[in-house]
Amino acid sequence: MPKISNTGKNMPESPIRKLVPFAEKAKSKGIEVFHLNIGQPDVKSPSCALEAVKNNTIEVLAYSNTDGSESYREKLANHYFAKSNIKLKAEDIIITTGGSEALLFALGSITDPGDEIIIPEPFYANYNGFSSSLSVKIIPITSKIENNFALPDIEDFETLITSKTKAILICNPGNPTGYCYSKEEIQQLAALVKKHDIFLIADEVYREFIYNKGAKHHSILGDFGLEEHGILIDSVSKRYSMCGARIGYLISRNKDVLTTAKKFAQARLSPPTYAQIASEAALDTPTSYFDEVIVEYKSRRNLLIEELNKIEGVKATKPMGAFYCMVELPVDDAEKFSQWLLEDFSDNNQTVMVAPAAGFYTTPGLGLNQVRIAYVLKKEDLKRSVELLKIALSKYKN
Amino acid sequence: MPKISNTGKNMPESPIRKLVPFAEKAKSKGIEVFHLNIGQPDVKSPSCALEAVKNNTIEVLAYSNTDGSESYREKLANHYFAKSNIKLKAEDIIITTGGSEALLFALGSITDPGDEIIIPEPFYANYNGFSSSLSVKIIPITSKIENNFALPDIEDFETLITSKTKAILICNPGNPTGYCYSKEEIQQLAALVKKHDIFLIADEVYREFIYNKGAKHHSILGDFGLEEHGILIDSVSKRYSMCGARIGYLISRNKDVLTTAKKFAQARLSPPTYAQIASEAALDTPTSYFDEVIVEYKSRRNLLIEELNKIEGVKATKPMGAFYCMVELPVDDAEKFSQWLLEDFSDNNQTVMVAPAAGFYTTPGLGLNQVRIAYVLKKEDLKRSVELLKIALSKYKN
Ligand SMILES: Cc1ncc(COP(=O)(O)O)c(C=O)c1O
Ligand SMILES: Cc1ncc(COP(=O)(O)O)c(C=O)c1O
Repeated sequence: MPKISNTGKNMPESPIRKLVPFAEKAKSKGIEVFHLNIGQPDVKSPSCALEAVKNNTIEVLAYSNTDGSESYREKLANHYFAKSNIKLKAEDIIITTGGSEALLFALGSITDPGDEIIIPEPFYANYNGFSSSLSVKIIPITSKIENNFALPDIEDFETLITSKTKAILICNPGNPTGYCYSKEEIQQLAALVKKHDIFLIADEVYREFIYNKGAKHHSILGDFGLEEHGILIDSVSKRYSMCGARIGYLISRNKDVLTTAKKFAQARLSPPTYAQIASEAALDTPTSYFDEVIVEYKSRRNLLIEELNKIEGVKATKPMGAFYCMVELPVDDAEKFSQWLLEDFSDNNQTVMVAPAAGFYTTPGLGLNQVRIAYVLKKEDLKRSVELLKIALSKYKN
Repeated sequence: MPKISNTGKNMPESPIRKLVPFAEKAKSKGIEVFHLNIGQPDVKSPSCALEAVKNNTIEVLAYSNTDGSESYREKLANHYFAKSNIKLKAEDIIITTGGSEALLFALGSITDPGDEIIIPEPFYANYNGFSSSLSVKIIPITSKIENNFALPDIEDFETLITSKTKAILICNPGNPTGYCYSKEEIQQLAALVKKHDIFLIADEVYREFIYNKGAKHHSILGDFGLEEHGILIDSVSKRYSMCGARIGYLISRNKDVLTTAKKFAQARLSPPTYAQIASEAALDTPTSYFDEVIVEYKSRRNLLIEELNKIEGVKATKPMGAFYCMVELPVDDAEKFSQWLLEDFSDNNQTVMVAPAAGFYTTPGLGLNQVRIAYVLKKEDLKRSVELLKIALSKYKN
C-alpha cells in the first residue's frame, strides 16, 4: 500500500465538521437538528447578485483573468474608498476562490516549511489546515474569555517572536470570539510587526458585522502605516450571504507580496466566472440590505446571550461582531457533550448541534468546557435551541 | 521590508502567461493577435449547462458539501460507468475547484517537502507551480519529439526511483504533446508503481479528445489493478468548454487518499455552487455535441499540421489527442522569437502568439527551438495564423 504524506496525516479534521456523521444519524432517526455549529447564514443573498447570474449572456464559459476580472477589481477599489475611505488600486487586489484561497496564497507567499506564525487563540479552525498543508507552525497566544477575548498583552506577543516568525495573523472581528479590536490594539500590532519586520495578516471577512454602539472596525488598510507589512483577507461569503459563490480577495500594497501571490494564482488559472458576476453585482447591494441584516443579527445576538445566561452554570460572552458566541458550559468535556446531544438526546424529536471549542485552540487543554454557537438561525429557532440546551444540560448532569 | 518566502520566490511564472504584457502592448497599438498560446477553446459551452445556471432558483447561495453535491457525484459515478464501463461509487469522487485543485490535493496528500515525483517532460507547466508550492521536487524523464512523445523506456523510469519518489504523474492525452498512451504503456506504468509501491497520478482532463483512428484512451481507473495506487485528475474545463466554471475532480479507490484529500477539501470549505449546477447539467450534453466538437478539432489539427509542415524548416508533430501541437521552429531561441512576434512583427496589422516550449521542460536546454500551438481557433484564423508564422520566420532570419 503506497503511503500518505506526513503533511496529509497531520492535516486536521475540521472540528466543526467532525460531528456531522452523528448529526446525520440523528436526522435519519427523524430528529430535527438545529444547526448552531456552522457559519452558514440563513439570510437571503442580495437579489441584484442573484439576478445578475440569471441574466448572464455567457456562451463560452471561459477562464477569467488570473487575478480576477478587471471591472470587478476596479469597482472593488472604488467601493473600499466610498465605504471606508481606503485608497486602493485595482492592482492591489487579487480575486481568489473564497477568503480560504486568499489565506493559502498569503501564507504560501511569506512562509517556508518550518516557519512560524503567531495567532491569538481561539481562532478560526481552518487556519490549522492551511498552515499544516504548508508545513508551517502556528504559535498560539491565548486570549481570555474573562477579557472577552481582547488582544493579549503586546509584550506577550513579543516574547514569542523568533527568527522563524513570519507573521502575526488576526481575525477582526473574530471568529469564534466576536471580538472587534480597538484602534489602539491595531496600532500596537502595527508597531510590533514593523519593529520586527514581519507581516500582519488581517482576516476581515466579518468587517460589516459590528453590533456594539461605539465599536468601530479598524482595517489594517487604514492609517496604520502598514503599506509594506499588511496583507488583508476578505470575502463575499458572509457579507452578502454568498458562501457558495467562493469569492474572496487578497489585498496588499506590498508589490512583492502581490507579485508572489499572483504566481500562486497563475498555477490555478482563474477564480470562478459565474461567482465573479454575482460578486461584482453584489457591490450594488442597497444599504438597506445591510441595515436590515445587522439589525437582525444584533437582535439574535441579544436574545441568544440573554437566554443562555439564564441557564445555571452557563456563561456566554457578549460578542461585539461577527455572528458567533463563545459559551462556557457546566460540563467537563464539551466535545463529548456535543456528541451526546446528537447521539443520545432529543426533546420532542428535536436536538441541537454546537461546535466544541477545543478545536479553536492550539494549546492542549484549553477550551474543553467551551462551545461556539453561531447565531445564523431565526429567533424562534434560536430560542428553541437554547431551551433544548437547557433541558439537555439538566439531563446530562445526571 | 518583510521577506517573501523561498517557496514564493521559487514559484515559477507561467511560461504561457509571461508574454501577456507584450501581447497587450501589441493590442494597444491596434494589432490583432491570434492566440495560439492558450488552451481556452472558442467552442460554445453546452446549452443545457448554461441554461441550468440561468434557471437556478437559489435564494441563499450557500456552501455546498465539502466533497461536492451528492447528486452531482452520484450522476458522475453513473456517467463513468455508462461512458467508459468504469465502476465508481460517489464516495470515490471529490469535486474540486478545477482539475488544478485536484492536482494540489493529490500532491498534498502523498508528498512532504523534499519528496520527488517523476513526470515525463514536456509536461503541463503548472505542475511546476503545484510542486513548488508544496516544496516537492519534479524529476523529469524526457520523452522525445522524434518518437512523437511516446512513453520513455520503462527501465529509464526505474533508474529514477529513489526512497523519496512518491508518484509518477502522467497526462493522458498529453498537454503539450497530444500523445495518447497505449494500453501496453499504461500496463507498464501500472506494474512499475505497484512494484515500487508508489502512486500513479493520471491527469485525464483531455480524455474525450482523441482523433487517430484506432487510438483509444485508457484510463488508469480501468482494468489495471491500480485500486490502491491510482489517483485520477479530471475536469469539466476542456470537455464542455467550461474553463471558467472551475470544476474538476479527484477520483481514487484508495480510502486513505480520499480521507486525506477530504481534509484538504474541508480546509477550503466547498467548491463553487453555481459551477456545480452547470457541471451537473452538463452531464446531459447530447452525444452530438461531442461528435461535432471532435470533428471540428480533428479538422483543425489536420489543417494546422499540413500548413505548418509546408514551411521550410518547421517540423510539427501529429498529436493524437488534446488540442495542442509541439512544433520545432528554425530559430535558436523560441522564447525570443515569440516575444519578437509580439513586439516587432506584424503583417497587415496582425500577429500571432505562441507558447515557447522550454517552460514545459524541466531539464535545462531542452525545447529551446520548440513552441506549443493550441488549435482552439476556427480554421480560417488558424490558416491565417500559420501564414503569419511563415512570413514572420522569413523576416526573422534576416
Ligand atoms: C474567519 C474566517 N475567515 C475565512 C473564512 C473563509 O471563508 P470563505 O472561504 O468562504 O471566504 C471563514 C469562513 O467561515 C471565516 O470564518
Ligand atoms: C493537462 C492539464 N491539466 C489540468 C489543467 C487544469 O485545468 P482546470 O483547473 O481548468 O480544470 C489543465 C488546464 O489547461 C491542463 O491542460
